[in-house]
Amino acid sequence: MTHTGTPLAAALPDADRLLDAATAAADAAACVIRPFFRSGVTVDDKSDQSPVTVADRTAERTIRAILAERLPDHAVLGEEFGLERAGSRHCWVIDPIDGTRAFVTGRPTFGTLIALLENGVPVLGIIDQPITGERWIGMRGRPTRYESRLPGTIGTRRCTALKLAELSCTSPEMIADAPTPYWDALRRAARRVTWGGDCYAYGLLALGQVDVIAECTMKIWDWAALVPIIEGAGGRVTDWHGRTLHAQSDGTVLAVGDPAMLAGAVSLLNTGLPAR
Amino acid sequence: MTHTGTPLAAALPDADRLLDAATAAADAAACVIRPFFRSGVTVDDKSDQSPVTVADRTAERTIRAILAERLPDHAVLGEEFGLERAGSRHCWVIDPIDGTRAFVTGRPTFGTLIALLENGVPVLGIIDQPITGERWIGMRGRPTRYESRLPGTIGTRRCTALKLAELSCTSPEMIADAPTPYWDALRRAARRVTWGGDCYAYGLLALGQVDVIAECTMKIWDWAALVPIIEGAGGRVTDWHGRTLHAQSDGTVLAVGDPAMLAGAVSLLNTGLPAR
Repeated sequence: MTHTGTPLAAALPDADRLLDAATAAADAAACVIRPFFRSGVTVDDKSDQSPVTVADRTAERTIRAILAERLPDHAVLGEEFGLERAGSRHCWVIDPIDGTRAFVTGRPTFGTLIALLENGVPVLGIIDQPITGERWIGMRGRPTRYESRLPGTIGTRRCTALKLAELSCTSPEMIADAPTPYWDALRRAARRVTWGGDCYAYGLLALGQVDVIAECTMKIWDWAALVPIIEGAGGRVTDWHGRTLHAQSDGTVLAVGDPAMLAGAVSLLNTGLPAR
Repeated sequence: MTHTGTPLAAALPDADRLLDAATAAADAAACVIRPFFRSGVTVDDKSDQSPVTVADRTAERTIRAILAERLPDHAVLGEEFGLERAGSRHCWVIDPIDGTRAFVTGRPTFGTLIALLENGVPVLGIIDQPITGERWIGMRGRPTRYESRLPGTIGTRRCTALKLAELSCTSPEMIADAPTPYWDALRRAARRVTWGGDCYAYGLLALGQVDVIAECTMKIWDWAALVPIIEGAGGRVTDWHGRTLHAQSDGTVLAVGDPAMLAGAVSLLNTGLPAR
């Protein structure tokens, strides 16, 4: 663990009040979600064929209620219920259950994602896993924290060569929709690939357990919370071109634990060839 | 949960003594494995490119020591150290860490597998997840048990149509080595697929969370423990032809929660077409 994040960016003004609101929302969402885990909850298919349950919807409503009470001027964008209070400089971006497939099949590796964007830039992010009791908290200007009943220490892993890298990806279906045909070149260059994971894999990257993740078809609520968490742990999150993610990004996401790996991964994903 | 296993097969003679030995071995293996989880343990690549660590090796030695002390006449076959005391009518078959990829990337979804074969037939099986504290215990003539800190109830789920089924598979690389090209027909027929899981997915099937799993390149230590667990929970485990698994099976494994789904899945896997 060589990258123990001490970000250079300035700390957030009002940081403690924002963090209190975010953790209160994550606590309440966990209380909503837990009783539905492995309960035989009905699964509906959305128009994009992704699954959703009463747990997703109730958790998002709960998070919205808490944020609205504490920070009534802030906008909120969520996966299930869209945008409220557009136009604020602060916008909360939430995915009540990231990894609904994992959730509905009883895997304790989904997560609640809560992010705060300031002028479009993610400055605070939480990944909460309510079954294992793991929580990652990233915040601009502070090292990422990991509050957990399981072992693990924040800090991405030094990994200067892709051939040593543990690659992770949620599903091959996602890669079938990629904008380039070169994901497989990255897979062949890496030491190994492990499938599944959703947001949990990004948490593992922040713990130095995974070295690189390349995914696509990611919405802003899928990636916003991950950025402060991984950057505050020493890693980098960009699109497949190595560019900072933003609201109009193309859905590609590339996360590396060791920033030295970024150029090589970008080259493989865009040309199928290693960086020169 | 309609299939709450009450197997018709006769109970094992000496069942309690065998179960005590198996649970003592699983307890000790868990104690060996836990300190290595997320510890930065060195990962070696075996000749088949699968990963192995000191945790795998020490856990297998520990299980062997306990079984040898308690049941000195029984044979033992393990993934890491081969066959001891060949020729016994009883043979323990063990995989100290099934899902080593999951283990080395910090996912709490690997498992220790311990099975007892009597004249080649699996009559006792344990899946143990030492991080979440989940244990599945299957035994001929008894309903499967689930001892766990997480929620969940033993009993596979009724699911008479593949279009309603949650399909699970550990990795697409495994399917690339399949003996037929029709796995994808099963995927298209199913409601959804979730990736990753190793033995843990079979445990979820026994809890009624997953309906069908079709995998291949499975060694006997990958599947032996799963058979009594799933059959004692109301499901079926066969090869892709629907035949009982045995030591010379071809490495294909098909598990269904609802036995009514077996014929349809077999047809798709072998012909690409639904059963007539």
